[in-house]
Amino acid sequence: MEEDPTLQLRVFDLNCWAIRYLSKRRQERVQLIGDTLRREGFDLVLLQEVWSEGDYSVLKETLGSCYPFSHYFRSGVIGSGLCVFSRFPILDTFLYQYSLNGYPYMLQHGDWFCGKSVGLVVIKISGIVFNIYVTHLHAEYCREKDAYLPHRVVQAWELAQFIRHTSKAADVVLLGGDLNMHPEDVGIRLLRACTGLRDAFAEAQRFEGCEAGCTLVPDNCFTVKTELQPFPLGIRIDYILYKAVSDFAVKCEELRTTTGTAPGKDIPYSDHEAVMATLHVRRQSRTPGPTLGTAEPALADAVNEARTEVRVGLQAARRRRYASGRMALLALLLLLLQAAAGLGSLAGWAAGQPLPKLSFCLLASLAAGALLLAAGLHLFHTREVKMLQGTEEEMRLALRALQGRLGAA
Amino acid sequence: MEEDPTLQLRVFDLNCWAIRYLSKRRQERVQLIGDTLRREGFDLVLLQEVWSEGDYSVLKETLGSCYPFSHYFRSGVIGSGLCVFSRFPILDTFLYQYSLNGYPYMLQHGDWFCGKSVGLVVIKISGIVFNIYVTHLHAEYCREKDAYLPHRVVQAWELAQFIRHTSKAADVVLLGGDLNMHPEDVGIRLLRACTGLRDAFAEAQRFEGCEAGCTLVPDNCFTVKTELQPFPLGIRIDYILYKAVSDFAVKCEELRTTTGTAPGKDIPYSDHEAVMATLHVRRQSRTPGPTLGTAEPALADAVNEARTEVRVGLQAARRRRYASGRMALLALLLLLLQAAAGLGSLAGWAAGQPLPKLSFCLLASLAAGALLLAAGLHLFHTREVKMLQGTEEEMRLALRALQGRLGAA
Repeated sequence: MEEDPTLQLRVFDLNCWAIRYLSKRRQERVQLIGDTLRREGFDLVLLQEVWSEGDYSVLKETLGSCYPFSHYFRSGVIGSGLCVFSRFPILDTFLYQYSLNGYPYMLQHGDWFCGKSVGLVVIKISGIVFNIYVTHLHAEYCREKDAYLPHRVVQAWELAQFIRHTSKAADVVLLGGDLNMHPEDVGIRLLRACTGLRDAFAEAQRFEGCEAGCTLVPDNCFTVKTELQPFPLGIRIDYILYKAVSDFAVKCEELRTTTGTAPGKDIPYSDHEAVMATLHVRRQSRTPGPTLGTAEPALADAVNEARTEVRVGLQAARRRRYASGRMALLALLLLLLQAAAGLGSLAGWAAGQPLPKLSFCLLASLAAGALLLAAGLHLFHTREVKMLQGTEEEMRLALRALQGRLGAA
Repeated sequence: MEEDPTLQLRVFDLNCWAIRYLSKRRQERVQLIGDTLRREGFDLVLLQEVWSEGDYSVLKETLGSCYPFSHYFRSGVIGSGLCVFSRFPILDTFLYQYSLNGYPYMLQHGDWFCGKSVGLVVIKISGIVFNIYVTHLHAEYCREKDAYLPHRVVQAWELAQFIRHTSKAADVVLLGGDLNMHPEDVGIRLLRACTGLRDAFAEAQRFEGCEAGCTLVPDNCFTVKTELQPFPLGIRIDYILYKAVSDFAVKCEELRTTTGTAPGKDIPYSDHEAVMATLHVRRQSRTPGPTLGTAEPALADAVNEARTEVRVGLQAARRRRYASGRMALLALLLLLLQAAAGLGSLAGWAAGQPLPKLSFCLLASLAAGALLLAAGLHLFHTREVKMLQGTEEEMRLALRALQGRLGAA
C-alpha cells in the first residue's frame, strides 16, 4: 500500500491568565499573545482563562487574517474561559460542563463560578477528521491537603468518558489544556488509560523549553514562588495529548515551551508557559490494537485508585450534607420556638417576654438567615453526594467489566 | 448481497410518575409496573420519573430474572429519574445534564431540583451496536404562556447535539422518553431534523392504543382534567424515536400504548400512558443519504424558529438579571446607609437615632436578606444569559453552515 504524504500540524496551547481586574498587565499580555500568534502562524490555537469576551474579541480581531475560524465556549457565571482559533474551518462544536467543580462559597478560589468544561471542535484537513478538545480542570490550591482532589478526579473521569463517546468517528484526537495535575497524578493516568491518549512531551523527538517540560516555573515573574517551593524546577500541568484512531499514525516531531519572559519584552505571556507541538499525521495500513496485558492492567489500577479518591470525597460530602442538614434543622427549631413564644406573649399566656424585643428580633433574623443558608448548602451537598455516588458506581462497573476481560484473557 | 435475518426488538417506555410523598398509590403502581414488565418480557425498558432509588431497587429486584442488566442515572439534587432495564448486557453508559432546566425558586414546579438529563446506554445484539438514549425534558405547565419554552428548546438542541456527537459509531440509535412537547412543536422538529430520528408512531405499520397515540389522556384517572381541556383526545408527549445508520434498516412493525386503567386493576400504571414499540432491524446494502432539498430546508426552518425562541428567552433572562442586580444594589445601598447612620449615632454625631432600635435592626436584617437573595439570583440569571447566548450563537453558526450548503446546491 502506498502511503500518503505526511500532514504537519502546529499546535499552540496556553492558559492565558486573563482575569479581569485581577491578572497583572492583562491587556498588554493579551495583545502580546495575539501578536505572537499572528507572527508565528500556528495551525491551531487552544486557549484557557480568556474569561472576558472583550479579550476574546481583541484576539479575534488581531488573529482574523491568519486564523479565520474561531470559537468561544460560554459556560457558568463567568464563562468557561476556553476558546479555539484555527486556520481550518470549524465544522462542529460541542460543550460539556463538568458535574462537579468546587464550591460556590469558596469565593477566594472561584472555580465554581467559571463552570469548568471541556469544549470540542471538529475540523477536517485533507480529508482527515480531527476532534480537538480544549479544557481546564479545577485548580489545586494545596497539594498536601487537596480538598478538590475528588472533584478533579470526577472531572478527569468525565473528560475521558466525553472524549471516548464523542471521538468514535474521528481519525485524530487532540486534547490541549491546563489539567491542573502532575504527569504521575491519578487523574492523568486515568485519562490516558481510558482514552489511549499519548503525552506529546513524553513522545516528542525533539524538546526545547523549560526543564522537564514544566509549565509553571519559578523563573516566570507572575508565578507565586511559595507555591512552587517543593518543586525547584516547577511543575508540568499544561498538556498536549493526542492519538490516532483507525488508519492513521501521529507522531510528535517537536515540543517546545516558552521560558518565562517573552522575547524582547519585560513580561511573560502569562503565569503559565505555553506548550507548542509540531505533529506529523500520516495515513498508514491498519495496525492491530494494543494487546491485552499492557493497557488494561494500567487502566484497572488507575480506575481503582481514582475510585478510592472518589470514595474519600463521598465520605466528606456526606459529612457536609449531614452538618448542613443538622444546622438547617436547628435553625428551623429555633424559629418555631420563637414563633411559639411570640404567639404566646401576644395571647397573654406568658407573664412577660423572656427576651427584650430587640434581641428577639435579632435572634429571629439570624435563625431565618441560618435556615436559608443551611438549606441551600444541604441541597448543594446532596447534589454533590449524588454525583460522587454516580461516578463511583460507573467506576465500579468499569472495573467489573475490566476484570471480566482480564480474567478471560 | 445476501441479507441477514431480521432482529426483533421490543421496547417499553414509560414516565412512571413515582414522586415520593406526592404521587398517588406510588408503591402499588411501581409493583404493578414491575409485574407487567416481568410478564411481558420486553427486550428493553426505558423509564422516567423513578425519582426514588428505593423504587429502582424494588424494580431491579422484581425484574432481575428477565432483565439482568440495568442502569440508574444519578443527577441533580433529587436524581434524574431515568433508568434502563435490558435483556442484553449494557456495555457502556454516559450522562449529559442539560445546562438550563427551570428555576430553583419555582418550588411548585421543582424541575430544577431533578437535574434533567439524557442518559446513554450502549448495547450490542448479534453484532449490531445500539445507542439507546433515555430522557425527560422540562415540563410545560401552561401552553398559552410557557415561561419554560426557551429552556426546553435549549434542552432539545443539546439533546440533538449529544445524540449526534455520541452516536457516530452506532448502527442503530433509539431515543425514548417524555419530551414534554407535542409532535408539531419546534423542539421536536429541531430534534428530528438535527438527528434524522424517525417517530415510531408515524412510521408504525400497526397501531393500537389511545387515539392519535396520545400518552396523556383524559381517560386516565390520574391526569389533571383541566390541563387537558383544550385537547379532548389528550396529548402525545412520550415518544420512541429511532434511526439506523450505516448498513442497517429499522422499521417499526407495531406501536401500542396503554389505555388508562391497567388490565384487571382499578388504577393505571402512571398518569402517562406507556409506549411500546416492536422494531425490526436488518442489515442491508448501503443506501444513499437523504438528498439535499428535503431534509436541510426543514432543518433550517426548525433552527430558525428555535433561535427566535431562544432570543425571546434571552431577552427575558436579561431583564431578570437586570432586575436582580438592581435589587442587590439597592439592598447594599440601604445596608451602607444604615451602617453609616449606626456609626454616626455611636460616635455621637447625630442628635438622635432617626429610627427606634427595633425597626433599625429589622430593616438591616431585611436588607441583608434581600442582598443575599438578589445576589444569588443575579448569579443564576447571569449564567442563564450566558447559556442562552451560547446556544443562540451555536444555532447562528449552524444556520450559516446550512445556508452555505443550500446555496451551493
